[in-house]
Amino acid sequence: MADRENKYPLIIIGLGPAGLTASIYASRYQINHLVIGQALGGLAFEAHKICNFPTEEEISGGEIVEKMKKHAESLGAFLMADKIVNIVEEDKIFKVTTQKRNVFWAETLLLAIGTKHRQINLPDENKFIGKGISYCATCDAMFYRDKTVAVVGGSDNADTSSLYLAEIAKKVYQIYHGNKLRGETAWINQIEGHKKIEVIYNTKVIKLKGKEKLEKIILDKPSHSLKEIAVDGLFIEIGTVPQKILTEKLSIETDKNSYIKVSLGQETSHRGVWAAGDITTTSNGFHQIITACSEGAIAIENIFKFLQKKNK
Amino acid sequence: MADRENKYPLIIIGLGPAGLTASIYASRYQINHLVIGQALGGLAFEAHKICNFPTEEEISGGEIVEKMKKHAESLGAFLMADKIVNIVEEDKIFKVTTQKRNVFWAETLLLAIGTKHRQINLPDENKFIGKGISYCATCDAMFYRDKTVAVVGGSDNADTSSLYLAEIAKKVYQIYHGNKLRGETAWINQIEGHKKIEVIYNTKVIKLKGKEKLEKIILDKPSHSLKEIAVDGLFIEIGTVPQKILTEKLSIETDKNSYIKVSLGQETSHRGVWAAGDITTTSNGFHQIITACSEGAIAIENIFKFLQKKNK
Repeated sequence: MADRENKYPLIIIGLGPAGLTASIYASRYQINHLVIGQALGGLAFEAHKICNFPTEEEISGGEIVEKMKKHAESLGAFLMADKIVNIVEEDKIFKVTTQKRNVFWAETLLLAIGTKHRQINLPDENKFIGKGISYCATCDAMFYRDKTVAVVGGSDNADTSSLYLAEIAKKVYQIYHGNKLRGETAWINQIEGHKKIEVIYNTKVIKLKGKEKLEKIILDKPSHSLKEIAVDGLFIEIGTVPQKILTEKLSIETDKNSYIKVSLGQETSHRGVWAAGDITTTSNGFHQIITACSEGAIAIENIFKFLQKKNK
Repeated sequence: MADRENKYPLIIIGLGPAGLTASIYASRYQINHLVIGQALGGLAFEAHKICNFPTEEEISGGEIVEKMKKHAESLGAFLMADKIVNIVEEDKIFKVTTQKRNVFWAETLLLAIGTKHRQINLPDENKFIGKGISYCATCDAMFYRDKTVAVVGGSDNADTSSLYLAEIAKKVYQIYHGNKLRGETAWINQIEGHKKIEVIYNTKVIKLKGKEKLEKIILDKPSHSLKEIAVDGLFIEIGTVPQKILTEKLSIETDKNSYIKVSLGQETSHRGVWAAGDITTTSNGFHQIITACSEGAIAIENIFKFLQKKNK
């Protein structure tokens, strides 16, 4: 058996709101733990404007996760930017191997690994990533000053992307397959009254055209009698899909969309492994920063009891 | 049928973190609503020091609920200090009558009415309230500068009460029936190293003595061979019990301890009535500010869908 010097009662995987809140609670319970993740904030980091996190009237995703990071670190947490490449279980202890060739051992794991952007899966979608195609308005809007862009989707994320892009671009088409935008009415009203935004309902993007970079998008039905729109950028905001690699490695039970099923205390089907945040089926499927934080807190209280019982 | 001028799609009952977050989400969904409650913040208001609300390294209960109130009001919410004295349902609309003789009608209700302090139920416990007996260290500690006080309980709330009282009083006895304090290890370590705090384990307070005001408490077994301790104040921190009146009026299903049972979307057994926060059985029974906020958000997303469907 390998050296177990680097052994922790708990390793939290994920640096988003769920993982950071879990770290805050773990520190308060004085559970010695590591937090490992690829990117601070996960998808929350990309949010341009958040108006519904109680106490914060208006804040960006980057600012709120920075506050949570600072909070976690003030309590002594060690946050590590690294990627988990393997997890194996030996004698009820988890061996975690990272891309930077670190090896850690953990009595319990909390998966707060979140979700990633869903792709349309169009031909050439991957070819044009970074060359006109983006999944993050907050990250890439600045490349499209005074240009023409399109947003695909009708959710809160699509709506806020359109509104943010309209501050920078010349013209924003929002293309949505439904006949009514979803999400907060506050955003929808802003979009409907916006001079720069044109919503094209009941329509899908079915093809991409361009040589070196994206030049045109092709719709499944004409808008103003045209099936082609010339755009400089296309922002795809059609939701997210769970990160799957670690749940597969640990043979954790998920629903048919790969979201992790958890108990009331956020424990997965795999003994010793908990999950919290967007990756789970809890909070009635309502993926918000506040619900992710709550799940992280609930998981830690449950892990604390598990460790207390185990080490009695 | 009475006048229904004052009719709202939603009335939120309760001014604690669950009710205030619900109001924030309701405003973002542009659900016209009222928030009615007896006291800003509910029991959260009394917390002396909160270190685990993500983004706030250290904040008092009063400060955090004030921030949430300001946030809710910035979005246009109308918060009303009043007490609900009756709710009746007529044709699937709820008629809400308040102590100040206001009458409102609501299509949906969100009960975020929280909990109240549990009493020991000792003889004379009620008689000495405000005359030595308190259920809120934050509210009343200042009356005991350089005096001797006792705290009953072993939870987070009891622990933080002892620590706060120790900043002001001369001596703090913490009397707990268990053999180990519960709650965050961070608090327990502070208590164990504190010169002014003496924890008396495996012991109960069984009697109160005093003429006009509390003078002595009687224990069920001796501590340092004495069964009596002279105290100026006794802080009872043995948990909370749900507010029951409104759930009884609406015949809502609860568990055996009177906590409201809710669906995944926080809906109660009574059609059109939702519940969120400490009053519910959700969040794995972990009653935290962050979990209450999350429940409030989830309830509103569910209410929004309900109202959309109903008014189609």
